[in-house]
Parts: sequence; C-alpha cells; structure tokens
Amino acid sequence: MKRFEIVPNFSEGRRQDVIEALCRCYREQPGSILLDYEFDADHNRCVLTAVGSADALIDATLAACRIAREKIDLNHHEGGHPRMGALDVLPFLPLEDATMEDAVAAARMLGQRLWDELRIPVYFYEEASLGRKRLLPEIRKGNFEGLREAVKTDPSRRPDIGGPDLHETFGASVIGARKPLVAFNVYLQSLDMEIAKAIAKAVRESSGGLRNVRAIAIDTTAQGTVQVSMNLVDVEQTPIFRAYEFVAAEAAHYGAAVSHAEIVGLVPLSAMLAVAERSLRLRGFYDQQVLEVRLAREEKA
Amino acid sequence: MKRFEIVPNFSEGRRQDVIEALCRCYREQPGSILLDYEFDADHNRCVLTAVGSADALIDATLAACRIAREKIDLNHHEGGHPRMGALDVLPFLPLEDATMEDAVAAARMLGQRLWDELRIPVYFYEEASLGRKRLLPEIRKGNFEGLREAVKTDPSRRPDIGGPDLHETFGASVIGARKPLVAFNVYLQSLDMEIAKAIAKAVRESSGGLRNVRAIAIDTTAQGTVQVSMNLVDVEQTPIFRAYEFVAAEAAHYGAAVSHAEIVGLVPLSAMLAVAERSLRLRGFYDQQVLEVRLAREEKA
Repeated sequence: MKRFEIVPNFSEGRRQDVIEALCRCYREQPGSILLDYEFDADHNRCVLTAVGSADALIDATLAACRIAREKIDLNHHEGGHPRMGALDVLPFLPLEDATMEDAVAAARMLGQRLWDELRIPVYFYEEASLGRKRLLPEIRKGNFEGLREAVKTDPSRRPDIGGPDLHETFGASVIGARKPLVAFNVYLQSLDMEIAKAIAKAVRESSGGLRNVRAIAIDTTAQGTVQVSMNLVDVEQTPIFRAYEFVAAEAAHYGAAVSHAEIVGLVPLSAMLAVAERSLRLRGFYDQQVLEVRLAREEKA
Repeated sequence: MKRFEIVPNFSEGRRQDVIEALCRCYREQPGSILLDYEFDADHNRCVLTAVGSADALIDATLAACRIAREKIDLNHHEGGHPRMGALDVLPFLPLEDATMEDAVAAARMLGQRLWDELRIPVYFYEEASLGRKRLLPEIRKGNFEGLREAVKTDPSRRPDIGGPDLHETFGASVIGARKPLVAFNVYLQSLDMEIAKAIAKAVRESSGGLRNVRAIAIDTTAQGTVQVSMNLVDVEQTPIFRAYEFVAAEAAHYGAAVSHAEIVGLVPLSAMLAVAERSLRLRGFYDQQVLEVRLAREEKA
C-alpha cells in the first residue's frame, strides 16, 4: 500500500475544542494515523501530522474541513502567522514506495473534492503546481484580506480549482506535494547577530549558498547564543551534514564556534543514517543493516 | 510482548539441505522471524539471526536441535572455527521493552529444556553465567575433542545443566544473554601492519584501552590498507563514535589517516542515531523525532 505523510495547517490555535475536533478526524479515520499536532495561540494556528493511504487522508481532511468551515471565520481571525484559509495549507509527502507523482495525484484529488463537495477554492503549490512551480508565499501574498480583493481584478491570482471568489468565511486552501522538510537550527557561541546574519546569508540558496537550504538568523542572545535557523527542503540532494559543516566552517571564519544544534519536529530515518555514515566514513552501509529496519521489513512480508 | 534477538551458531556450513532445514525451524515457527543467516564452508558453520518471543524462539531452537542432533556428528566435523557442539553457541539479546533479566530467564529456560527433552548438556555464559561471569573462549577451550576429555577429570569444566559427559555426537551448547554486539572495522591509509597492531592494542579494553572494545589488527594490504577490526560489546556505554574517534586520533599520531570504515552485520538503530547526534552536536534530540520510529510506535498502539 502506498502511504503519505500530510501536514495540514489550520487557522485555529486558541479554541481547544475546535483543535481537538480537527485532530479527531485524522485519529478516527480508518487507515489514517495522527502522528503529531502542535498549536500556538499567538500564531492562532495548529499544525497536524498524519500518515496513511491517499484515500484515508483525503476523507479525513474533508471531514476536518467540514468542521473548519463551520467553526472558523477568517473575517474574525487574528494571529501573527500569515494565512489565507481555514485550512491554510496542506502538503502531501511520499513515504516508502510512494513516488512524488503519487503525491501530486493525491493532492489534485483532494483539491478537486474540496471544491466539489465543500465549495472551497484551491490553489496548487510546490510539486503539484499547475504549470510553473509556485511557492506558498507567492500564492498567499496579501493574506485572506488582500487575496479576497486581488481575485476580483487580477486573473493571475485566481484559484486553480473553483472560485474565482474566495469562500466567504473559509477563504481558500493551498494544497501540494513536496519532499520532507527538516527544520535544523545551529546555535553559535556568540552574541553578535551580525555574524549569524552573515552565515545565514552565506548558506542559503537564494543568496548564492547551498541548494535546497533556506536560512535566517534568529536572536537567541537571551540564551547566550545566536542562531542560524534553516529549513532543508531536500535532504537527499543536500544532506543535513552538508549544511552543518558549511555553517561550522563559516562560524570558524568569524571566530564563533558552534555551541550546539537542534532538529525541530520530525526527520526521516534515512537523513539521520546519512549523517552517521558520513561521520564514520562508512563504506557499503545499507539501511537494512539497522536491526529495526530489517525487522519492520520482515514483519510486513 | 517482550521480544528478543537470538544468534544461534550451528556447526554446519557445507550441506545446504541441513542449513535450510535449520533455517526453516525459525521461519515456520509462529511468533519467530528469521532475519538473516550466513554460512561459511571453510568455517563449516552457519550463523542465524531470529527475533521473537522467548517461547517461540525456544520452541524453534528445540526443533532445530532435534535436526542438528540427527544430522551433525562432531566426531566427523572439520572446520576452521572453534566449536564444541552441533548448536555451538546461542545468545539472547533483549529488544524493545525486554530487560537483560528477561533475556537471562529465557536462556535458562532454553538450557533446561535442551537437557530435559534432548539430553544435550548446557553451559551458561555472559550475563546468564551461574556465579562469576564466563566468556565463550574459556568454556570452549580445547574444542569438542578436548572438552570431552576434560569433563571426565576436571569438575570445573563440567556442564551447568546435564552431563557430566558431553552428548556423544552433539557435544554441548553454550547458551547465554548479552547486549547487541557491533562489528566495526576501520581501514587505515597505510601498509604498515605494525601501526594497525599498535592501534588495536591501544584501543582494546584488555590492554588498557576503551571499555567494551575488543580489537585486533587484520592484514588487508592486498586492498592497499590495514584494518583495525573491533567488536563493540556495549554501544550504550561505549558508543561507536568513541571507538572511531579514538582510532582516528591514534592513526593521526602515526601519520596514517583513516581511509574508511565498515559495519558488518546488524546494528541497533539507537547506536546509529547516537553517531548522528554526536556529529551534529544535537541537543534535546529524541528517537521519536524519527518519522519511522514514531510511526512504528503509533502502529503498535
């Protein structure tokens, strides 16, 4: 069976009963497993992680969006995080035997059903983009309030499915497919934000650094450090150790040693094994040498 | 359910039909999974790896020993590897929720049944030793031929269960409990075996090096290298990266860089994650952040 991870972001981070009702949709759907959920009152947003078959995840998401359509009104939504819909964004990530094409197909299926069954307009992003690849900030520019007006006059801002107007209270959703993203932060033994900014600029793709790396400097001087905060959007092509070694070398250039690092949220096993292989200089290692990996394969057989 | 890994070593590495019959006992026993098997005609020995409940693994082993008792005669067994029994040695390794005490209990149960049901005398070793901890070479000293004579005159060499004489054709088995062992080899950019010997001596516990490390030098000069071959017998207490860093530092002292390394056979996931945590200087990382680990937990729940 082909399985996917999805990361639905809903615009609700304050009302526990609503968050719980959304989670329940993924927990109680047969074939879907809710792995994790986080919410933030300041952002007024919750982020769920679920794994399952495409059908199960799509059914669970439609159930959750029925609740969101009833309970969340973007006209009265306040929070620090950009947003344009009650279900704001949802990527499909292929797992195990599933391919990126399978994830794109699942995203398209969900988008079609959101419009057909709930009249929610949908934009496709990342690998599921129609035509040229679009990223979230471009689609969400102006937030719910700005986008609601933009679609009236600018055809290029209109939804890929449904619309052209946004849903009156729900707004619209951005659905897509992408590889797993690893949130990786490196802390430096320094109180100089200029150094963290220079390293973030050096390492990120957009200013000439490493492909597949997004980076900003974060002020953590209250903890006696500064942070280079990275999103690694393709750890097969640009592994975690490459980002780490790049930042450590840049830090050494400025005389600021690495204090420590952290991975926020989930990380694929293969990405962690790649780090171990690198640092032990392993040759000929394969994932099936890990007892638990071998065991999982035999249990499925 | 508490599960264990076992690594039964049988004194048969040439007759495919016998090896296959032994494997089938572990493959067909409900509750037992045969993970792996390797055999070597020169050693005339096969090494199986199975995972399951204590009951399932004990039943499968009794079935395999019935076959071994019928097919393997130590009086006519030739091979390069030391051996004293048709089932020569079998350790229980605790997995997941199982403790070392559970593994010792399983080893004792198997030993008792081998004698009660098949009249095979048993010695206990490693954590399952009766009284002071005994290792395999001490028990197996003299091999089948020497031990068969020694038990007649030396009470300290007699079996822990059954005997005092060995089984006429089967010999006797060594059953025990231990932690997972990681076979880890580091290759040096050098053709000087004296350097490899000096490093092996420096790193191994027995000559004053790292606890839980056994090491010898292996001549791999035909590959343009020399090898420091290690068995790490407790990677929780003495992690893989510690052995690697120790060997790399010693090699640097002699001006011989590390070429590469290899892990032979299976390795626990936690041992590989510990390497990745070390090299990324991760703080606050926990195994449940690995997607596949989290998923396995949720699927069991």
